[in-house]
Amino acid sequence: MISPQTLTLILDLAGTFVFAISGAAAGVRARFDIFGVLVISFVAGNAGGVSRDVLIGAVPPAALTDVRYLLVSLFAGVVTFVWTSDVDRLRNAVLLFDAAGLALFAVVGTKKALAFGLNPIAAALLGMLTGIGGGMMRDILLAQIPTVLRADLYAVAALAASAVVVIGQVNHLPASVTAAVAGVFCFGLRLMAIYYGWRLPIAAAGAKEPRRMPPEP
Amino acid sequence: MISPQTLTLILDLAGTFVFAISGAAAGVRARFDIFGVLVISFVAGNAGGVSRDVLIGAVPPAALTDVRYLLVSLFAGVVTFVWTSDVDRLRNAVLLFDAAGLALFAVVGTKKALAFGLNPIAAALLGMLTGIGGGMMRDILLAQIPTVLRADLYAVAALAASAVVVIGQVNHLPASVTAAVAGVFCFGLRLMAIYYGWRLPIAAAGAKEPRRMPPEP
Amino acid sequence: MISPQTLTLILDLAGTFVFAISGAAAGVRARFDIFGVLVISFVAGNAGGVSRDVLIGAVPPAALTDVRYLLVSLFAGVVTFVWTSDVDRLRNAVLLFDAAGLALFAVVGTKKALAFGLNPIAAALLGMLTGIGGGMMRDILLAQIPTVLRADLYAVAALAASAVVVIGQVNHLPASVTAAVAGVFCFGLRLMAIYYGWRLPIAAAGAKEPRRMPPEP
Repeated sequence: MISPQTLTLILDLAGTFVFAISGAAAGVRARFDIFGVLVISFVAGNAGGVSRDVLIGAVPPAALTDVRYLLVSLFAGVVTFVWTSDVDRLRNAVLLFDAAGLALFAVVGTKKALAFGLNPIAAALLGMLTGIGGGMMRDILLAQIPTVLRADLYAVAALAASAVVVIGQVNHLPASVTAAVAGVFCFGLRLMAIYYGWRLPIAAAGAKEPRRMPPEP
Repeated sequence: MISPQTLTLILDLAGTFVFAISGAAAGVRARFDIFGVLVISFVAGNAGGVSRDVLIGAVPPAALTDVRYLLVSLFAGVVTFVWTSDVDRLRNAVLLFDAAGLALFAVVGTKKALAFGLNPIAAALLGMLTGIGGGMMRDILLAQIPTVLRADLYAVAALAASAVVVIGQVNHLPASVTAAVAGVFCFGLRLMAIYYGWRLPIAAAGAKEPRRMPPEP
Repeated sequence: MISPQTLTLILDLAGTFVFAISGAAAGVRARFDIFGVLVISFVAGNAGGVSRDVLIGAVPPAALTDVRYLLVSLFAGVVTFVWTSDVDRLRNAVLLFDAAGLALFAVVGTKKALAFGLNPIAAALLGMLTGIGGGMMRDILLAQIPTVLRADLYAVAALAASAVVVIGQVNHLPASVTAAVAGVFCFGLRLMAIYYGWRLPIAAAGAKEPRRMPPEP
């Protein structure tokens, strides 16, 4: 039987890996050199978790003191750098890995915030932040409006996962079951939103203005 | 008689509300969906206070653990989203609420930093940061140069309010009087700077270059 | 004989000064007013150190509580604002002072992280972050992709300096010698990379896409 600590670590490293790939793919598209690609891989993979750790007072953050986060990020960056040969395919890769990372980080971020004694609402918010923080920071570094703010059901999907984890914990459901349900729910919601173009409404006032930039991630 | 703690809380929530409106209005203009508008409302309303709390070691920040900050931000976001019908009017609303939030946060940020034992100069700096942090983060999320760096007497107005609070505290003046004077001073200075187009000088070297982007908030 | 604490303080203030000049020069070019120039001077001069201090739990950061960091930043900002008369010359000044600040901060950031008990790899990462943080934040405030992510051997040079400091400490070499070697190595590497146009490879996939923006700092 896998312990809750081990489960959290595995989910956290997996989330770091997939977000680091999303960062690396974005860096390759923006023509960063290999080291720039590695930096944005590390930022995309760890900014969400680092922000959460700083906000709950868990410093220095695990992402800095535990070398596995660095190794996983570098590995993701190198793999992406070496194996990419098609920019258009990369765009889909960014979307897909970004969705997986969102799900994993929302789950693990909520669990860690609960473990630090935060109340359920704060824990859900921090879970969502953990999920969206890496992608936001990646987009800020690219001088773009973060995908999370305009994409189809993005932050909503993260919050849904966080809410499932919080509800599960409050009702003493098995942690691994809750985590799995929350993660699959978030990932599925995000992929279906991308595929079917599900969108939340925008305000009537905003709708009159022409869109300022394409909704590219 | 209202207690200093209650006064600080009221000012803080009021600042959160008006800055959240400025964020929501900017989000509506950028055609964010309802959830994106709520996220940028929360960020604009709370980034300044969260930064201050992280810098003085008051973690987890009140904005996360006290659900009132979340509710106030969401309320501001929903109201703005539903009631806006005119994009041009929104632009003035952003400017006005931004000025009010600046004044409130500069005052409350300075008071909190002093309460945490920071020296007067550090407290004034943190007060200014609390005031300008939310707007800066809002503009960064919109991939724009922050208004604070180019607008008419923006950060100066925040620093003026912080300085009044620090001087009042050092001279043991009544806290609510000092807060009121500081807030009105900052708000008035900012509005008059907008109305009359008051500007600080720019360097001779910079003046030769064409302006890179319009001074839009 | 100069004490390690004094050496660290001198390097830190020198790094703050040169990065503040790089920020001020960028602010003048972007036509910020005098106060905006002072704000971006302070941010460029202190964001790296503040980030490091927040991540290792050294709050409130020295940059806020020790007024010398503020004075040095303001002095750099005023000098740059008053004495600049040629925008093109400014561009080279930004590059040069940026390189010096990078070297100083990478060294001092690594030393401080080691002093706080972080392991060698985390200390080297934090040293690099201290070095590149100010310039990244400066560029984010200008709504540009940070130079560090695309420039010639930028973050690599910072990491090289951090590595030298870590290796020196692990082998008990004299701190001032190690610091000097690390700093000169980083500064020289960066200047030669600029002068000779040394670049790290970019991915084959990225190379097919046209460059999105000029590599301007």
